Amino acid sequence: MLDYPSLAALAAVVREGGFERAAAVLGVTPSAVSQRVRGLEERLGAVLVMRGQPPVPTEAGAKLCAHAERVRLLEGELAAQLPGIAGRGERSESRVTLRIAVNADSLGSWFLPAAARFAERTGALLDLVLDDEEHTAGRLRSGEVLAAVTTDPAPVQGCRTVALGALRYAATASPDFVRRHFPRGVDAEAITRAPMLRFDRRDGLQARWAGEILGAAALDAPVHWVPSTQGFVDGALAGLGWGMNPLPLVADHLGSGRLVELVPERRLGVALHWQAARIGARLLDLLSGEVMAAARANLREGQAGAG
Amino acid sequence: MLDYPSLAALAAVVREGGFERAAAVLGVTPSAVSQRVRGLEERLGAVLVMRGQPPVPTEAGAKLCAHAERVRLLEGELAAQLPGIAGRGERSESRVTLRIAVNADSLGSWFLPAAARFAERTGALLDLVLDDEEHTAGRLRSGEVLAAVTTDPAPVQGCRTVALGALRYAATASPDFVRRHFPRGVDAEAITRAPMLRFDRRDGLQARWAGEILGAAALDAPVHWVPSTQGFVDGALAGLGWGMNPLPLVADHLGSGRLVELVPERRLGVALHWQAARIGARLLDLLSGEVMAAARANLREGQAGAG
Repeated sequence: MLDYPSLAALAAVVREGGFERAAAVLGVTPSAVSQRVRGLEERLGAVLVMRGQPPVPTEAGAKLCAHAERVRLLEGELAAQLPGIAGRGERSESRVTLRIAVNADSLGSWFLPAAARFAERTGALLDLVLDDEEHTAGRLRSGEVLAAVTTDPAPVQGCRTVALGALRYAATASPDFVRRHFPRGVDAEAITRAPMLRFDRRDGLQARWAGEILGAAALDAPVHWVPSTQGFVDGALAGLGWGMNPLPLVADHLGSGRLVELVPERRLGVALHWQAARIGARLLDLLSGEVMAAARANLREGQAGAG
Repeated sequence: MLDYPSLAALAAVVREGGFERAAAVLGVTPSAVSQRVRGLEERLGAVLVMRGQPPVPTEAGAKLCAHAERVRLLEGELAAQLPGIAGRGERSESRVTLRIAVNADSLGSWFLPAAARFAERTGALLDLVLDDEEHTAGRLRSGEVLAAVTTDPAPVQGCRTVALGALRYAATASPDFVRRHFPRGVDAEAITRAPMLRFDRRDGLQARWAGEILGAAALDAPVHWVPSTQGFVDGALAGLGWGMNPLPLVADHLGSGRLVELVPERRLGVALHWQAARIGARLLDLLSGEVMAAARANLREGQAGAG
């Protein structure tokens, strides 16, 4: 078997972002942590973590960390069945933490109640990281995350992919913004002059809406960049620009008239997927169940599309 | 003078995240963009951008981009005074974009209305990036951002630092969470067993509150990691954990009883600063004015502290 105390030290250094914090969590001295990691590196003949602020694992180090986290997950399940078996002392080590990637709009709208139900039921902890579509598959393959809520449907080796349904988006702005920028109505020409919000360079949702609903060609409008789900809602409310907002986040504002839809009820859907490692861990299955139940309640079935 | 068409090509590649998108924005072919960047590199004898998805500027490339963006800012002001001088064709180039770093909790609470007033008044566009305290000073020094709302008060060469006041935070949770995890009240012992929310590894606000208000030593409680300002509020509402939430975001929930304070009205303040490049640009001065006015309305004067 591998040298698990050393592996736990390596994983703690990476997870906590430093040797001193890892030592505090493990209840040992920083020099003990450092020795364990160095010993592991000498035996394997490879650097496992680049020393820096924060320490960054090498490719080999990341694989070992992922393995250590999976073993901890399985250990946690064993401890639930055989309570006497759990070690003492390493208190914050004794609760299992599942690292899950979640795309920003899901984290900002429907995901957290499901996470809370899972945590209450199981006592497990969650380490949520923002999904960055470009790296989701790699993170799942390397084991850096155990599962992901993502717009990326590409199957990942060793994972099960479940279609969750579509998150609906409405093109919204403040009534004052619409009066100022669309005095003669919202059409393919006016939309090229009104400032729009974009989340980041990969966010093509505003352009997709303008193309599908207004028939606008490649949208080249002035852009305010706002890298925050709630910031998109707040930016629309403040009259900074129009943007595609998740319907669950703006339904109340549309009802009260603080926001209006650029074209009433012409919305887009973005298909979401749950990708979860096939490792036969009961905790991960329970989380999958909560996520799928929340998806059924909050997302729309069927494919993504306009309508 | 420098070769500005080539400099504009370089800056567009970096800003838009690709040669093709840069070409679309500049209204030229991708091969023209590529030639301009390569020509600049040959004349300077240095690689300026690492070709990849997305292209990443080298240190020299980042300095040239920062210079190009500052020249564009000053050009935009000239164009406002001499309307005939602006070039034609490069439409989305003809509006000035200011890149500003904003810490997540400010972006999620008080910053956007100020941004919207500035944008409406000037027609300028904003490229907001999330402030990552560890890199703010470097970003300001290199010119990558023109200004920052940050918790980091360290003066940066070439920048003016203004104290904005303190954002107030309340320790909040759902009433049901408090019943489950603090049946005998909130004290230094119980707080070590209740799950808490943390934003990221640098987020020490929960531990600071437990230390200053409850007298708890180094807080080693179970953690759910939630890297989102609104996710913190939603996580507290859903009963996932307790966390330090910006008062402006939870005042309504506290009023309605959907959230409660762990200890009534024992809050913490986090001091915020506005760091802005001294480049004598009128647009940046106008933005500073709006930010300071919003800070006066939303933040508390004086130093950060408990109370």
